[in-house]
Order: sequence, then structure tokens, then C-alpha cells
Amino acid sequence: MYCIIMAGGTGKRFWPRSRQIRAKQFLSIFQKKSLIQQTVSRFNPLMDHNHFFIVTNRDQRDILEKQVDKIPKDHFLYEPIGKNTAPCIGLAALEISRIDPEGVMVISPADHQVKQLAKFYAAINAAVKVAREKSGLVAIGIEPVRPATGYGYIQTDEAMGVHDGVEIYKVKTFAEKPNLETAKRFLESGDFLWNSGLFVMRADAYLNAVEEFLPELHDGLMEVRETMGTDQYEPTLQRVYQQIKSISVDYGVMEKASNVYTVKGQFKWNDLGSWEQVYKSSPKDENNNAISGDVCVVDTENSYIHSSSGVVGVIGLNNVIVVQEKDAVLVCPMDRAEDVKLLVEKMKRQKLEKYL
Amino acid sequence: MYCIIMAGGTGKRFWPRSRQIRAKQFLSIFQKKSLIQQTVSRFNPLMDHNHFFIVTNRDQRDILEKQVDKIPKDHFLYEPIGKNTAPCIGLAALEISRIDPEGVMVISPADHQVKQLAKFYAAINAAVKVAREKSGLVAIGIEPVRPATGYGYIQTDEAMGVHDGVEIYKVKTFAEKPNLETAKRFLESGDFLWNSGLFVMRADAYLNAVEEFLPELHDGLMEVRETMGTDQYEPTLQRVYQQIKSISVDYGVMEKASNVYTVKGQFKWNDLGSWEQVYKSSPKDENNNAISGDVCVVDTENSYIHSSSGVVGVIGLNNVIVVQEKDAVLVCPMDRAEDVKLLVEKMKRQKLEKYL
Repeated sequence: MYCIIMAGGTGKRFWPRSRQIRAKQFLSIFQKKSLIQQTVSRFNPLMDHNHFFIVTNRDQRDILEKQVDKIPKDHFLYEPIGKNTAPCIGLAALEISRIDPEGVMVISPADHQVKQLAKFYAAINAAVKVAREKSGLVAIGIEPVRPATGYGYIQTDEAMGVHDGVEIYKVKTFAEKPNLETAKRFLESGDFLWNSGLFVMRADAYLNAVEEFLPELHDGLMEVRETMGTDQYEPTLQRVYQQIKSISVDYGVMEKASNVYTVKGQFKWNDLGSWEQVYKSSPKDENNNAISGDVCVVDTENSYIHSSSGVVGVIGLNNVIVVQEKDAVLVCPMDRAEDVKLLVEKMKRQKLEKYL
Repeated sequence: MYCIIMAGGTGKRFWPRSRQIRAKQFLSIFQKKSLIQQTVSRFNPLMDHNHFFIVTNRDQRDILEKQVDKIPKDHFLYEPIGKNTAPCIGLAALEISRIDPEGVMVISPADHQVKQLAKFYAAINAAVKVAREKSGLVAIGIEPVRPATGYGYIQTDEAMGVHDGVEIYKVKTFAEKPNLETAKRFLESGDFLWNSGLFVMRADAYLNAVEEFLPELHDGLMEVRETMGTDQYEPTLQRVYQQIKSISVDYGVMEKASNVYTVKGQFKWNDLGSWEQVYKSSPKDENNNAISGDVCVVDTENSYIHSSSGVVGVIGLNNVIVVQEKDAVLVCPMDRAEDVKLLVEKMKRQKLEKYL
């Protein structure tokens, strides 16, 4: 069993705390440990550090080597450019299949928050069993507790039994982030789960599925495989990544394959997609503010205010996000948290890249 | 003729740009020159640098000596504590009366913005004439152009003639900052002027008026006068300032005396009392924002955004003030600009004084 941590994201929506050389997964948001350190700690009870692989990009190399020092450095896989999750998992599958073609990969984003670990491990173990015994491609689902519009959903099909209290299903379909009406319908129907972005599958099962549904990606991966351990590896990887199409594992593979399963996770989970979600997951004071660092507020409610250095003073605002980090400050309404991405794009055009 | 610049204010409403050791008058707001440097430059065509006196407090000493280096250092008068304008002018009057008891003091705050200098000098010259010839206490009035609620007003009485195009009046009364309804009535009546806080009077006339209307202050000033030039000056000043009452020249002297005049200034004037007034006086971009420094905005209008170092990013806000300076950030709605004072008070209570 191997843990593949996908840590290639840049976390634009977490500017100014996340920067090009310090993506979101390297931030300490609720704990002293950064999100990637929390992710490693979460899986470590299931396997040794030398069973971990981390897929990321070279911009993150220094901070990765500093923060995650127990994982062998040759288990850090650097993609030349981000091409979404299907190629990312493909690159990891090549590595695993060199060691153990039938090795089970537990694939996780680096930036999620998980609570209720016993339930989390039960879900993972059920998924590992399905992946190992049925050669299944397993998506970890989460039983939804509200009509969330920020997550993708998995519609369950035929029930395949229960393992250690965790229900296992065949997957009917994957659904993109719904609008509120649809999300409510999903919740009421009882056969939709949140798509956590966690997957469990054997390396050979994944590569076979890629061969069938993403043949160009498979060709590219095979070219890369031939150069592994040689000085041609880097240039080949570079060339292949330039050519392959950017596609997620959900839509490129899982939705098309037939041996696709899901397990109904009962643990608490948050993908921390934006400052708004961090606010929602944060402890609040009597004015429903989540405040960290040196902050002084007057007549301010329902707001997320973070100061990494120096002080932030806020008067008379409601539902705002104010984040100070080093040489930068973000101010935006709570319901515009997703648009921090737009701000970052605009800063590039405005030649303010030095702050990104 | 002497120029007395009252520079003892701390400018709490200009936090975080103004700090305890860098009051508002030392800020460069619209020009490279700071407000106090602009004040000195404004009066310098009327008199030599060695005719200037600046009354302030010791916290400002270093920055004052740095910014205002042409005025003799022994013309910087340091009050032990601020006791409003009546004692401040009294201390200056002691100095002037040592040199020239009948010397005319042109007394100005250090933090105002003035445009149309020819009209400004005409108003000052008319006031100097009244002060010199009638031993009058003269308040410089400004013809109001809108029903401002942020300024005090002067009600004119009998017209006393015109000097070089400037109308001169006896004063009926001084009015505190009115509400909007009252301000509209003032504007319509035609016999109210804005109280600029600029005064012109002979040193002896002022000391005589203080003797009559503020006898305790006069006693204190006389004690101080006896120790001038000796090593008892500092401790005496300290003791006297502890005892005297805090009172403005308007209410302590001008309102009670009979030889009180005003001139109708026609120049453009702004007392820059808050970030809102700075915003109003600033050039705006196509979204009606006044932006300075490295700033990136998305969907933001009618706002004042200043970054002294680093970058400020703002999304989706209207009518806000965001000011970044060194280790501090202020975020507040335009109509709460006056409450920056409250924020500063709260920061003290919250043990965040190091940012003040």
C-alpha cells in the first residue's frame, strides 16, 4: 500500500498567504503543522514514510524538502507543468508499478482537513479492500450533511456490501458542482455523496484504465517509463507533459470505466477551497469573527481576519475577509472569496507578480 | 510679524500613517512635502524662517528637526502635555513678547491644505492690519461653499470695511460643528463663515485677554515667563501644564473678548480631518477610487486605497478606506473615518500600543 499525495496546486485562492513558492498545502491554517504535514501525519499510521510519494512542481521543492523531511527525496515527483489529476496519478502509478505493479495507491490531495480519524481509516480500509480484491477504481465519497454547492458529487448505484461499518457501492455517475436547487435534490435523494478527491486503486488497474480511456496519456507515460533512471527522464517528461491534455481523473478515467466503486465515508471533511471555507471551519468569537494574529476590531461581525505580522485594524464591517501576510493584504467580502483567483490574475497583468 | 505653527496634534484619525512619533503634520499626503513643510512654505513668503515658532511635543522632536531644518531649533517650543490651543498660543506669546511685545502672531495649525495662495495672503494681510491697528483678536474665516458639518462656524456681526478686497467683520459668536440642518441654515443666512483655526493677534493683546478671561492660565504663564532662560524653565513648564485646564482659544478667549474680528477668506481650504477628507481632496480614477502605491482592485468603487509598502488587493467593495503603512493596515467604511480614533483607543486597551 502506497500513499500518493497530490501537491501540485498553487492555491491562488489563498493569496496572499499562498504564493508561487509557497502553495496552500504548505500553510499552517488551523494547526502548527502545515496542511501537507497534516496529510502525511494522517496517513502515516497506515504505512511507513518510505511508502509515500508526493507529486508536485519544482517551485515547491525547497519548502517541500524542508517541511516533509521524513519521506525519501526520490519519492518527490516533480511535474514540469500541472496537467490536472489524471497525468499526476499516472506519473505516480509508473513509480509504484516499478516497485509493485499490484501495489494499491491511496491518492490524496495535500490540502484537505479531516476530522474523526477512526471513521476516516475505516473508509480507506474498505476502499483498499475493494481496490485490492476487485481491481476496482475507488473514489472515497462522503455522506453529505448539507446541500453544498462547492463540491462535486458521486451518485451511487448498486450496493456492494459493508466492510467494517463502511458501505460500498458501484458508482452510477460523477456530477460536477451543482447549483443550490440541484444540491438540495442530491441531498434529499440519499444516493449522492460528496466527491472528496481521494481515490484508491492498484497501479496496474489505473494504468490499464488510462490505456483504455486516455490512450495518448498512456503513450506518453510509457515513453517516460522507458527513460526512468536515465538522463533522458527529465527531457522526456518535459516533452510528454507539453503534449498531453490537461484532464482530471474523475472525468478522464473514473466516469468512463466500469469497475468504479465508492465507499460512504462518515468522517468530517473540508477541502478548504477558499478563505470562506477556512472561516467556516474556524472557531469564532462572540461577534462570530474568526481572528488570528494582532488584530483590533470595532463594530465588526461575521468576518475572517488574519494578520501574520504587524496589526490589522477593522472598523464597521460585516462579512469581510482581511488577510495580511508579509508584504501583502487582501480585503474582500466573504461571498467573493472565490474571486481571489481573479485578483491574482489581475495582479499579473498589472505587473505586480513580485507579490504572487 | 511672527508665524506660530501649532503642531502638537497626534493625528489619531490618520492611523496607521500617523503614529505617536510621526503625527499627521509630518505626513506627505498630496505632495512630496509633508503638511508641516507645506505650512512653513506657505507662510515663508510673508516672513523669514527666524520669525517662525513651532509649538509641539517632545515625541515629535526628531522628525521635526529633520523635516523643518531652516527654523532655529530654539524656536521649537515643546509642551509637556497637550492642553488645547489657548495654552499653546500662550506659550508662543511669551516668546514673542520677549522679542517684541507688540509683535503680531499669525497662528496656524500645521496640517491644513490651502489653495489659491493670493487670496490666502490677502486674508492674512487684512487680518494683520486689524490685529496691528485695532489690537484686535482676529479669526480667519472662510466663505462656506457647502453646508459642512465637520467644521466650526463664526457668525459675523457689524461690517468693518474691506482691505485689499477682503471683508472685515466684528464677530457675533463662534458656533461648534453643526448638524446638517443647522449647517444649511448657516449657509443660507450668509453671515456664517467656516472657522479655519487660523488666528492673527498681537502677543500683548492675547496675553491681556488671557489675563482677563483665563486668569489661572495667565498666572501659570507668568510663572513660566520668570524662569525662561534658566534651568527652572523645564520643571516649571511641567508643573504649570499639569495644573492648567485644557481649553481652546476659541472658547476660552475669542468668544468672551469684545475686540474680536474675522475676515472673510476666499481661498480654498481643507483641514484634512480624516481619511474621508483626504479621499475627497484626492484625484480619482474612472471608478472614483483614489489609489496610491501598489494596489490591485477588482469591482471596487468610491474608495481610498493607499499602500506605503507592499501590495493591497481589494475585491468587490464600495466606499471603503484601506490604508497600509509599515506594520499596520486599516480597513473601514468611508463614513466611519472619524472612528479611527476609537480604533486607536481600543488598540491601547488591547495592549497593541507598539503599533501606535
